[in-house]
Amino acid sequence: MNEMKIIARIYNDYTSKFGVPRQSGLVESENSLIVFEPEFRAEEALRGIEESNYIWLIWEFSEFKDTKWSPTVRPPRLGGNKRLGVFATRSPHRPNPIGLSAVKLTGKIKTPGSGTALTVSGADLMNGTPIYDIKPYIPYADIKPDAVNHLFDKPGEKFKVMIPDGINPPITKEKAETLKEILSLNPAPRYIDDPERIYGMSYGGLNIKFKISDKTVTVTEITEEQ
Amino acid sequence: MNEMKIIARIYNDYTSKFGVPRQSGLVESENSLIVFEPEFRAEEALRGIEESNYIWLIWEFSEFKDTKWSPTVRPPRLGGNKRLGVFATRSPHRPNPIGLSAVKLTGKIKTPGSGTALTVSGADLMNGTPIYDIKPYIPYADIKPDAVNHLFDKPGEKFKVMIPDGINPPITKEKAETLKEILSLNPAPRYIDDPERIYGMSYGGLNIKFKISDKTVTVTEITEEQ
Repeated sequence: MNEMKIIARIYNDYTSKFGVPRQSGLVESENSLIVFEPEFRAEEALRGIEESNYIWLIWEFSEFKDTKWSPTVRPPRLGGNKRLGVFATRSPHRPNPIGLSAVKLTGKIKTPGSGTALTVSGADLMNGTPIYDIKPYIPYADIKPDAVNHLFDKPGEKFKVMIPDGINPPITKEKAETLKEILSLNPAPRYIDDPERIYGMSYGGLNIKFKISDKTVTVTEITEEQ
Repeated sequence: MNEMKIIARIYNDYTSKFGVPRQSGLVESENSLIVFEPEFRAEEALRGIEESNYIWLIWEFSEFKDTKWSPTVRPPRLGGNKRLGVFATRSPHRPNPIGLSAVKLTGKIKTPGSGTALTVSGADLMNGTPIYDIKPYIPYADIKPDAVNHLFDKPGEKFKVMIPDGINPPITKEKAETLKEILSLNPAPRYIDDPERIYGMSYGGLNIKFKISDKTVTVTEITEEQ
């Protein structure tokens, strides 16, 4: 047993669990900010980190923190009907709810009130997620060129995304493109197949509603959150 | 804050901290056994893990658990004279003493008294190290082909290893070859440069004594541990 300290938190537009990509790197254009907790806000602790263009984040599945672990899980990525051992998956329902993600390090910036922060892209962490550790990616040790995973051999098939005329997201074109990328990953649990079902997710201050059928995500409404 | 549970422990021939390779994969021929703690010894929790040939271990730097973290460190791999932020390194002197290693999964075996265990190779964990989590390596997410790390761009230069005639390690030829590989990584702290200094390490029931000079490790004595 060991007490883990929260060293930092990540901030981004993934404001609901629903919609967060299921692995890092799937939405490269999504930018996040990593802000250190006051106790760990030591400028010199980051000296040299810019010599790496990727970093590992070891973080807390905070949304699943108080749920029981499960020896077997049914990963949504595999359609939700295949039962696997939790250690064969990246499921959050683990004995220790720890996540692991390699993200692109895009910058180191001085903030007015929160010390030196890191900017990263391609994260799969929800807004506010606590971080336990940050490590440089070391290509010669971390890249295993002969690695094979027969269960998770490629990202899920991308869906088409339709935002009908008349629905004008009150966001920049770039943000709208990122939103499309996120939706193309089909955030719904795979075992639900109801073309009339309306899903909702929160993204950067917006409520997005959409339907899914024929491998197409159709946005039905975008409103600003109150 | 979150309490981490020890889910398993690793067992191998790295019986002293001194001598453990500084990254995973550097000594591929070293085999380790991962034994689950009784509470997490659920056969089904491993279902499908054999579909991956590499797994991530998230583990405790148990030897450093009670030491204070340091915002800056001087990695031995860089000669011990370069001061870097701890988050730019894989140093154990971190706020949370967590290690991260990708190891080759070589088997899943039923043990007589400890349930189903995993065999792995290429680990950089000392014998007895507690493990917090085991995850499959997912090539499409974990391999970052464009990753660059200017500080740690390759493993350290390999040293020559001399085991003079007359010193016959009481181990198999294969084990002796593995020992040579370990010594070739130059386990000494880099900032000591004393050709007469005798180093000692423990490896699989043996006490190994050696000197280092001119990029050559010369074994001076191998004895069985009492």
